[in-house]
Amino acid sequence: MVMSERVRLEKLSRDQCMQLLSSHPVPIGRIALADPRPLIFPVNYHVYEGSIVFRTDHGTKLDRAIRGEFVAFEVDEVVPNFHIGWSVLVRGQAKEVTDEEELKALKSLPLRSWAPGEKGHYVRVDPQTVAGRRIT
Amino acid sequence: MVMSERVRLEKLSRDQCMQLLSSHPVPIGRIALADPRPLIFPVNYHVYEGSIVFRTDHGTKLDRAIRGEFVAFEVDEVVPNFHIGWSVLVRGQAKEVTDEEELKALKSLPLRSWAPGEKGHYVRVDPQTVAGRRIT
Repeated sequence: MVMSERVRLEKLSRDQCMQLLSSHPVPIGRIALADPRPLIFPVNYHVYEGSIVFRTDHGTKLDRAIRGEFVAFEVDEVVPNFHIGWSVLVRGQAKEVTDEEELKALKSLPLRSWAPGEKGHYVRVDPQTVAGRRIT
Repeated sequence: MVMSERVRLEKLSRDQCMQLLSSHPVPIGRIALADPRPLIFPVNYHVYEGSIVFRTDHGTKLDRAIRGEFVAFEVDEVVPNFHIGWSVLVRGQAKEVTDEEELKALKSLPLRSWAPGEKGHYVRVDPQTVAGRRIT
């Protein structure tokens, strides 16, 4: 494989990562959890007060598996023809939001799930580590 | 949230899933592994004889973590304006390819990594389970 010498891998700061997550035109990410073997679920997400928030349906595998678990959350964006792009990985504990005030705030967010189902449960991941890289 | 009643979630067969993986215009997927906590790495992939193949660099975290491990591999494609798309999840054991004949075959594949680095190690995931769904 011949690789252009102009390809560069740039590490992104936490601020840069959170900015990319917040401004993604298509807010879809992937949650990985160990159940105990790895699983990945695509989710529509929103960044709220520095945390990743997404919705689940009660009783689903994701919903059952995720409460209190340490998870990984990944978002990427690629520009196919130019072979460039970025990816961000957030890791932290996933918690169901049960506080009434907080739920009220979350329900007012533009956080829609494309998949059918009520998805009335809100889960938030408070980032313990945030890492990202960009290929330029 | 008001959801159109025309939104439908369709389960995909294994054949449909493998067909989608094989024909993806942008062959980038995400590998999740438990280390023991979940991690996600984006990878350029290729479907070869029914297996997922990707490349790693010797000594990287992905390279060290992945040998013989059970992993999840996810690919999705979305059409943002229409809120439709599909996702496929493959699960199985990841093995480094060391057989000379097989390596020769893999090296002739159009499998490039966008990230810099030689990425001389080939890893294959033989699907144990394949599941997919499409939102239409």
